[in-house]
Amino acid sequence: MAQQAKPTEGVILVGQKPTMNYVLATVIQFNQGFDRVVIKARGRAISKAVDTAEIVRTRFLPGQVEIKDIKIGSEKVGEPGKERVVSTIEIVLERVKKA
Amino acid sequence: MAQQAKPTEGVILVGQKPTMNYVLATVIQFNQGFDRVVIKARGRAISKAVDTAEIVRTRFLPGQVEIKDIKIGSEKVGEPGKERVVSTIEIVLERVKKA
Repeated sequence: MAQQAKPTEGVILVGQKPTMNYVLATVIQFNQGFDRVVIKARGRAISKAVDTAEIVRTRFLPGQVEIKDIKIGSEKVGEPGKERVVSTIEIVLERVKKA
Repeated sequence: MAQQAKPTEGVILVGQKPTMNYVLATVIQFNQGFDRVVIKARGRAISKAVDTAEIVRTRFLPGQVEIKDIKIGSEKVGEPGKERVVSTIEIVLERVKKA
């Protein structure tokens, strides 16, 4: 569910589990020292990815992380001949730098 | 469903209707001369808002509109005492300026 892309960047793939699982996974990655966590989702899980980012930002780490970037896109999934296009989202949360 | 904010900006509120309704409403606003259409949604409709933006951008108006900005946030809904927080999204689609 969670994998490490760069030394200081974590990735959370949001799927069918309860939102709070992804919220906690995100908070844990920040607590482990990641400066940035990318929350990714496809299809119907997109709403849950937005919920995850908002709950982390407003309730768990208020004033400590901010939304740095949001990208949306499309991806083909399924076997050849049965391909469907699904929408994707990537929400980049970053630790707020102290002045 | 659709209302006009500024002379050149349209707004689409994505709710429970089929995605294609919102796709067509967005395309119609661009065809009516709007330079910018803001696609808004809350809660579970967020995934549908992303689908709407992606379908307009890739299938209906390819090369003609681009995603200019995406914002997410939280909003309180419900009566006092029964308030819940829902996530929100605003996707700004803008007509590509010809060089």
